[in-house]
Amino acid sequence: MRREPTEGSAQAAAVQAEGGTPRRGAPAAGRGRTDDRRSRAGGGRTVAPERRSGRRSASGELGGDQVEGRRAVLELLAAGRRPVRRLLMADGLDPSSQLDEIEALAYRRRVRIETVGRARLDNEARTEAPQGVLAYAEPIEPTPLEDLCRPTRSGRLPFLLVAAGITDPRNLGALLRSAECAGATGVVLPRHRAAHLSPTVAKVAAGALEHLDFCVVGGIPAALDEMTKAGVWTVGLAGEAERSIYSLPLGEVAVALVMGSEEKGLAPLVRRRCDELVAIPQHGNLASLNVGVAGAVAFFEVARQREVAAAEG
Amino acid sequence: MRREPTEGSAQAAAVQAEGGTPRRGAPAAGRGRTDDRRSRAGGGRTVAPERRSGRRSASGELGGDQVEGRRAVLELLAAGRRPVRRLLMADGLDPSSQLDEIEALAYRRRVRIETVGRARLDNEARTEAPQGVLAYAEPIEPTPLEDLCRPTRSGRLPFLLVAAGITDPRNLGALLRSAECAGATGVVLPRHRAAHLSPTVAKVAAGALEHLDFCVVGGIPAALDEMTKAGVWTVGLAGEAERSIYSLPLGEVAVALVMGSEEKGLAPLVRRRCDELVAIPQHGNLASLNVGVAGAVAFFEVARQREVAAAEG
Repeated sequence: MRREPTEGSAQAAAVQAEGGTPRRGAPAAGRGRTDDRRSRAGGGRTVAPERRSGRRSASGELGGDQVEGRRAVLELLAAGRRPVRRLLMADGLDPSSQLDEIEALAYRRRVRIETVGRARLDNEARTEAPQGVLAYAEPIEPTPLEDLCRPTRSGRLPFLLVAAGITDPRNLGALLRSAECAGATGVVLPRHRAAHLSPTVAKVAAGALEHLDFCVVGGIPAALDEMTKAGVWTVGLAGEAERSIYSLPLGEVAVALVMGSEEKGLAPLVRRRCDELVAIPQHGNLASLNVGVAGAVAFFEVARQREVAAAEG
Repeated sequence: MRREPTEGSAQAAAVQAEGGTPRRGAPAAGRGRTDDRRSRAGGGRTVAPERRSGRRSASGELGGDQVEGRRAVLELLAAGRRPVRRLLMADGLDPSSQLDEIEALAYRRRVRIETVGRARLDNEARTEAPQGVLAYAEPIEPTPLEDLCRPTRSGRLPFLLVAAGITDPRNLGALLRSAECAGATGVVLPRHRAAHLSPTVAKVAAGALEHLDFCVVGGIPAALDEMTKAGVWTVGLAGEAERSIYSLPLGEVAVALVMGSEEKGLAPLVRRRCDELVAIPQHGNLASLNVGVAGAVAFFEVARQREVAAAEG
């Protein structure tokens, strides 16, 4: 059983820097994706056969194909955004309403449940606690950056997370979950040296993978430039920044929050390309918040200001 | 090697409900504590030999005596709030500025570093990634609830976390870290059926144990009544509450944020005893935030409003 590194483990950065956790069972490219994406609510985007400026997407490069844990699998089935190829459930699980819901959704989606022994399921699992449920789905299909920079069909302004060097899968998963809850519309991930949508990310994200749009870029600095040109305000979180996030008018703008690596924060070039650098004021003795928590506080500040603006508007 | 349950593990609730992780190497009661507490900044409280209403404290019931991980050990030594009895470091660790800092602080605090083999350290460790550093310290001494309900010596109004049923040690640790960073002054923990300050809590809290005051109570509802009488506004976080946390005037009040269990939220009696119930408005498709993240968003809303009030006042 392969285990992914967990937060704070000294191995985390090294393992991820070597290319992250290998995926298994990645399906053939693009199969059945176009129809699926066309049918998505709030999207209406089609998958362009080619990407601009060398960002040609290989289907599956984002990952997300192996989904473990009850909440994540439940959201996978409920969202119905991508086909589920296989659904494994351990036998002898205690009755639970979540399992009942998974079974009902699987039936509705015409996904057959394969009941397997607990040991076999744990053996196929790549997270520590798959909770007796594991699904293989089509990987997440990337969305072009220019699409992420447009308002959604329902008229929401872009509200993006740029994960500029998050290496720990638990942190990335936590960020995705909080971002989704705060109303974020999309996520920009770098192709190299970063956590991708691995089983641990999918599990900790608790279903956020099914509701966010993801873009993979070759380089974060160039992507930031492109976002600025497209009218998205790029705001980097930097502990040492003088400006407070609370001083920014975030209620009525297209915004991207840029989060750096757990160890080193924002890289110098990324820092320079951000339109603003802000800090979350700290009031205690500890040096800093966990990166996932800092992100959540920032996402909900955007959400709070958007709420105030909507009430006033 | 004993492992503590991690978030989302089906065992977590059960294990903790059975009384949590057993401590080893807990020192004799009260040894050397009084002087130590007297010398604390912002406190000035002495340890009363007896507590009111049957809340007699057995020294060590809070735990916190086994501290693992570099950041947590560093803060333990830097804060100097409680004696460190032993400090173990694995041999053959790669050079790091954090390790250098730990060594310098240990020298200053006259704590001898015992260099041991990696295997032995990992064997004594109770978290998954002790990062080659493990300390045994005097356990955290409880603070009486009435003291937590008074302004600190530096004049800060009480800003408390009531952990009313958090069972997962990672969640409790994350809450403590965020609370400390937001300027919280103290924490109320129930004696039974909850995570106490275990090695995992201490590690995830990343040193917050050294800067917060902790109170252990027999029952949360009675404690909430006592807090209300002492002028602390008790605000329960409940996903289904109609009132938004952003509508509360939190900038100039003594406040306690009450967080319920991961599975069931606030217990009915706890809910009834809170002065207010509020929700963090959600803007996505997912059902809910992780409890640690919800807490962080709430803590930083208190911090934000206190900042605004201070600037206006």
